[in-house]
Amino acid sequence: CGKVMNKVVEFPIKLKKLGQDDPRRVVHSLKVGLAVLLVSLLYYVQPFYNGLGDTTMWAVITVVVVFEFSVGATLGRGLNRILATFLAGALGFGVHHLASISGEIGHPILIGIFVFLLAASVTFIRFFPRMKARFDYGLLIFILTFCLISVSGYREEEILEMAHKRVSTILIGAFTAVFVCIFICPVWAGDDLHNLVANNIEKLGSFLEGFGDEYFKVAGNGESNRAHLQGYTSVLNSKQSEETQANFARWEPRHGKFRYRHPWRHYLKIGNLNQQCAYRIETLNGYLNSEIQTPLNIQSNKVQELCMKMSSESGKALKELAWALKTMTEPCAAASSHITKSRAAANNLTSMFRTSAAAAAGEGGYQVRLQDMVPA
Amino acid sequence: CGKVMNKVVEFPIKLKKLGQDDPRRVVHSLKVGLAVLLVSLLYYVQPFYNGLGDTTMWAVITVVVVFEFSVGATLGRGLNRILATFLAGALGFGVHHLASISGEIGHPILIGIFVFLLAASVTFIRFFPRMKARFDYGLLIFILTFCLISVSGYREEEILEMAHKRVSTILIGAFTAVFVCIFICPVWAGDDLHNLVANNIEKLGSFLEGFGDEYFKVAGNGESNRAHLQGYTSVLNSKQSEETQANFARWEPRHGKFRYRHPWRHYLKIGNLNQQCAYRIETLNGYLNSEIQTPLNIQSNKVQELCMKMSSESGKALKELAWALKTMTEPCAAASSHITKSRAAANNLTSMFRTSAAAAAGEGGYQVRLQDMVPA
Repeated sequence: CGKVMNKVVEFPIKLKKLGQDDPRRVVHSLKVGLAVLLVSLLYYVQPFYNGLGDTTMWAVITVVVVFEFSVGATLGRGLNRILATFLAGALGFGVHHLASISGEIGHPILIGIFVFLLAASVTFIRFFPRMKARFDYGLLIFILTFCLISVSGYREEEILEMAHKRVSTILIGAFTAVFVCIFICPVWAGDDLHNLVANNIEKLGSFLEGFGDEYFKVAGNGESNRAHLQGYTSVLNSKQSEETQANFARWEPRHGKFRYRHPWRHYLKIGNLNQQCAYRIETLNGYLNSEIQTPLNIQSNKVQELCMKMSSESGKALKELAWALKTMTEPCAAASSHITKSRAAANNLTSMFRTSAAAAAGEGGYQVRLQDMVPA
Repeated sequence: CGKVMNKVVEFPIKLKKLGQDDPRRVVHSLKVGLAVLLVSLLYYVQPFYNGLGDTTMWAVITVVVVFEFSVGATLGRGLNRILATFLAGALGFGVHHLASISGEIGHPILIGIFVFLLAASVTFIRFFPRMKARFDYGLLIFILTFCLISVSGYREEEILEMAHKRVSTILIGAFTAVFVCIFICPVWAGDDLHNLVANNIEKLGSFLEGFGDEYFKVAGNGESNRAHLQGYTSVLNSKQSEETQANFARWEPRHGKFRYRHPWRHYLKIGNLNQQCAYRIETLNGYLNSEIQTPLNIQSNKVQELCMKMSSESGKALKELAWALKTMTEPCAAASSHITKSRAAANNLTSMFRTSAAAAAGEGGYQVRLQDMVPA
C-alpha cells in the first residue's frame, strides 16, 4: 500500500521532469489536442457532415494515427497513408469489378484468393530492411484498405462512393495533422539529427581533453571530474536513434539551413565513426578504474607530458570539428593545428620507445590506439 | 534504364534470400493471409453480417493491425487494443451522456473541451519510457476510440450500440489474430531473446579462442580465419533488439521451457555484459589490423604461450557458459576450470612483468583488460 502511495506521489514529479527535460513534449501534446479538435469540427459543421456522413471518423482516425513528434515522421506517415489508400483503393475496386462479373459463386471465391495472396505477399515485402525503414506503415495500410474495399464490396452497392469518401477523409485528416505539425512550433527531425551528431563529437572531445589530467591525477580533485567524463557513454548506443532520425529527415522539406535533399546519410557515416571512437574511449576509460598503478617509469615527466598532449590535443581537435559541424562552417585552421600537435606528440612518443626497446611492446599498442582516434 | 533493369532482375533474388535467411518469414506471411481470409468470412456468412453490419470492417482492420511476427508482439498489441477500446468506449459514453444533458449549445463545447484535454494529456503520457515500451499502442487507441465515440455521439443516436459493436468486432479480430499466431507455427519472442543472448556469448568466446593464433600468426593461413573472428561485431549493436524482444516476451504465456514470469530482464543484464565485453574485444581486434609489428621480446616463447592461454581459456569458458545458457543447465565444472586456468596464466604474466619492471607499464594494462572479460 505504501508502495502504491509512493508511486502516486512520484507521478506528478515525474510528469514535471518529463516536461522540463524537453519542453517540446508539452507543446507537441497540445498540438495533438488542437489537431483532433480541428478535425472534430467536421462533425459539427452541417455541410461537411452532409457530404461525408459516417466516414468523417476516418479523418479523426487519420489525425490521431498520423501525428508524430517530428515533422519528418508526420509527413512520412501521412504520405504513406494517402498513397497506400489511393493505390489499394484503386486495386481493390479493380478486383471487385473483376470478381463481380464472374457470377454468384465465383465472386466470393475469387475475392478470397486475391485477399489471401495480396495480404501474404505484401506482408513478406515488409521484411525488406529498406521497405521497413521508409514504407512499413504504407504497406500495412495498403493491405488494410485493399481488404476493406474488395471484401466489403461484396455487400456494399456503392463501392466507388465508399472508396472516394475514404480517400477524401484521409486526405483531410492527413493535411490537418501535417498543417498543425509544420506551422505551430515545428520539431524537425533533421535539426535533431544534426545536433545529436555534433554533440556526440563534442562529448568524445571532452573525454579526451580531460582524460590526461584524470589518468595522471594532475587535477587531483577525484570523483567529481570523473563523472563529468562519462558523457561519452551515450554515444555507444546512439546508432539506432540516428538511423531513425535520418529516415524521418528525408521526408522533410527545406527548412532553416537544410535543403530538401540534404545529405543525411553522411551524418550516419560520421555517427559510425563516433561509435568506433567511443568503443576505444570505453577501453581507455577502463584504465581509469583499473587497480593497476601507473608504473613509475611512465610517470617520468617527458612521457606524461607527451601522453597528455596527445590526448588533450586530439580532444580539442574533435571539439573544433563539432563546433564547425554545429555552425555548418568550414573547420577552422585551429582544428588541423591541434591534430598536427597531437600527431607530433604521438610520433615523439613512438621514437622515444623505439630507442628504449624494452618498453616498446605495450606502449606501442597504447599509442596506436590514440592515433587511431585522431582521424575520427 | 540499365539500372532499373538490374533492380528488377535482382528483386526475386533478394526475395529468395530474405526467405532463406529466416524461413519463418514465409510462414508468417502465409499466416497473415490466412487470418485476413478467416475474418473476411464474417462478411460472407449471413447471420454474422446481419448482426454486425458495417462494423464488420473493424474486425478486418484489427487483424491486419494487430498481427505481428512474434506471439508476444501480437498478444501485446491485441490486449492493448481490446483494453484501450473498452476503457475509452466507456469513458466516451460517459462524457457523451454528461454533455448531452447540458443543452443544445453546451453539448459541442463540452465535448470539444474534453477531447482536447484527453488527447493532449494522453499524448504526453506516451512520452514516459515505461509506458512507451509496453502500452504505446494502447494509449494511441485510447485517444482514437474516445474521440470517435464522444464526437460521433453528437450525430449518432444509437451510440451505445455503436460502442458495443466496436468492442465486439475488435474482440473477434484480435482473437482471430492471436489464435492463428499461437496455433500455427508460433514464433516466440522469448525463444528468440534466449537464443540471441546465448549466441552472442558464443561469438565472443569464438573470438577470444581464435585471437591468440591470429595475433601471433601461429596458424598462418591469413585472411580466411580473420573474417571468421568478426562475428562479434553484431554483439556491439544488439542492445536495441534485446530490449524489444524482452518487452514482447513479457506478454507471452508459458511455452516450452519458459514459465509465464520467466526472468526476462536478466537476459538484458547478460546482454549488457556481452556488450561491455564486445567493446573490449573491438579494441583487441584493432591490434590485429595495426601496422605495428609485435616486438621480438614479446614473441619469446614464454610470454606468447601465456597470452595465448589466457585468451583461449577465457574464450572456452565463455563458450561453456553459452552452452549452459542455451540448454538451461547448470554451467559444468569445465567452465570454472577454464576460468581458473586463464586467471593463472594472467597472474603468471603479471608476476613475470613485475620482475622485469621496464615492460610492466603496457602489458599490465593489456592483462587487466583480459581479466575484466573473464567474469562476463
